[in-house]
Amino acid sequence: MTIRRSLSLRYEEGRLSLLDQQALPGTERWVAGDDPQALIGHIRALRVRGAPAIGVAAALGLASLARQGADAEALRKAATQLRAARPTAVNLMWAVDRMGATLADPSHLADRVEAEAIAIFDEDVALCDAMASHGAALITDGEGILTHCNTGGLATAGIGTALGVIRRAWESGKRVHVWVDETRPLLQGARLTAWELARLGIPHTLITDSMAALVLRDGRVQRVLVGADRVAANGDFANKVGTYGVAVAAQFHRLPFHCVAPWSTVDLGCPSGAAIPIEARDPDEVRGVVLPGRGLVWSPPDVPVYNPAFDVTPAALITSIVTDRGVVAPGALRG
Amino acid sequence: MTIRRSLSLRYEEGRLSLLDQQALPGTERWVAGDDPQALIGHIRALRVRGAPAIGVAAALGLASLARQGADAEALRKAATQLRAARPTAVNLMWAVDRMGATLADPSHLADRVEAEAIAIFDEDVALCDAMASHGAALITDGEGILTHCNTGGLATAGIGTALGVIRRAWESGKRVHVWVDETRPLLQGARLTAWELARLGIPHTLITDSMAALVLRDGRVQRVLVGADRVAANGDFANKVGTYGVAVAAQFHRLPFHCVAPWSTVDLGCPSGAAIPIEARDPDEVRGVVLPGRGLVWSPPDVPVYNPAFDVTPAALITSIVTDRGVVAPGALRG
Repeated sequence: MTIRRSLSLRYEEGRLSLLDQQALPGTERWVAGDDPQALIGHIRALRVRGAPAIGVAAALGLASLARQGADAEALRKAATQLRAARPTAVNLMWAVDRMGATLADPSHLADRVEAEAIAIFDEDVALCDAMASHGAALITDGEGILTHCNTGGLATAGIGTALGVIRRAWESGKRVHVWVDETRPLLQGARLTAWELARLGIPHTLITDSMAALVLRDGRVQRVLVGADRVAANGDFANKVGTYGVAVAAQFHRLPFHCVAPWSTVDLGCPSGAAIPIEARDPDEVRGVVLPGRGLVWSPPDVPVYNPAFDVTPAALITSIVTDRGVVAPGALRG
Repeated sequence: MTIRRSLSLRYEEGRLSLLDQQALPGTERWVAGDDPQALIGHIRALRVRGAPAIGVAAALGLASLARQGADAEALRKAATQLRAARPTAVNLMWAVDRMGATLADPSHLADRVEAEAIAIFDEDVALCDAMASHGAALITDGEGILTHCNTGGLATAGIGTALGVIRRAWESGKRVHVWVDETRPLLQGARLTAWELARLGIPHTLITDSMAALVLRDGRVQRVLVGADRVAANGDFANKVGTYGVAVAAQFHRLPFHCVAPWSTVDLGCPSGAAIPIEARDPDEVRGVVLPGRGLVWSPPDVPVYNPAFDVTPAALITSIVTDRGVVAPGALRG
């Protein structure tokens, strides 16, 4: 019996379930992800989120569908739909394309599809581990580290990207203090990163995004670590909206700013950040807060809104990119 | 019968009432401000807010108390308590000290106290008007202008500070588009500035604070205008938290950044921003949203929080300060 479990994903006996990240931290609720349409809904609603976790979830969802008896054509159709669920993170496309390559040979289809999904899961765990080792070596004892959005166990199959680096540094005995941007509009920092850090016992302080520049100036922070949804060939990268402003502030205060991402997030076919599609989301996310069963609108309900889900940070603002293959300069990706 | 009305303050027949700014924009509710303890509660809870409006409200509150028959000693005691209601904005102290100076002479006490409060109100209207005229001259047709917090008719007795400048430019025929930072944690931008701009018919777009750097970079914004709670003698100024990050981003993108404030906000006795006391507020404001009758906690309820209400922007990041006396360089305040 093939079983894989992460903080936010469970694959057991051909069934995929997802920890509903929109309901966290108040409620720990698992939802079924076997059905492709339901899984697409979960991805769009951010019940499963984090660039690596979305890719792994899509792969496991296809494995589940194969285990339910779907043929290659049905799997191909589901793969095409899953691939388009969110446009910015490249890991989703990368994982779905890997799964698609297993469909050419009809023999033992379900076994091979499942094996590939499990390989993607296991590789993500190993990638997180490798990033954590490379990144933790950068961190010195006693550092304050600012992070944006959520990049931990919820966002990957393993221990995370940027948050995995912080966790590894902490577990190796370095004293760190994490400054957590709340990450409006969807509050992944306030809801998810704060929850993960409390579980891990790592000291942290929650701030609004608007306080980030202040804590960088006041000597509370010595380093910024963030994840990435897509890294272009020139080293520009897309990440959760707000990352760019933090990068500008880090540069102004001469603090190191690192992006932490596996090579599956690097898109060498994308020449620069200008070519990365940026997902526009529902204006209501900015007009108030949209959470399951407890949304609240606090602005005039028809106020015009701009709501890009991501922004692009140019390579010039990045000290280095922490990958599973090592720490690289943003200009050295084409290698 | 002495009557004064602004967007957020009403003084009629010796009674002060305040538009509850915490209930906006959903509910337009007026609360009584005659009783000093109630008024202090309104100030602390931000039912009345905006550096100039707080000063005017405190003056009118003392006038109301005098009209109710309070003697000089009772007025002095109320003045002392009101003066300490919020520590950062200097206008409150300035207005209360002016009122205090009227208490030395016991003859016609209520008349003189009320006359001084009305003078403070009327002067604030005139100061807003003067700032608007000086500031509007800076704005060119077609500009995108980013602002933070609320600095309009709600925050003053007149048409506002930064938002008054924008309004004057718009009413003089210049096409402007206002980018409104939502201003976490208390959402003065999303709730109050968006409401005021809609009433005035001025085009605007609401964004999260984390998107400000992005819209500055993308050519959507040509100028930043903000208010101030206290301007130090060297040109540093305190304003709603988040202002500093916007100033850093404006400098990085080489965009003009102006603070708009009357001379009653300039504290020449305060040598630099380091000497401005910064109010720390309730952590629950950051753990979720605190609004009348509809608070919501979305983070782990015991998460450690840092919640300064203001930050200090150094003079080096300010293009100019728009005052009622004209547009001055931040280094030229001492005259």
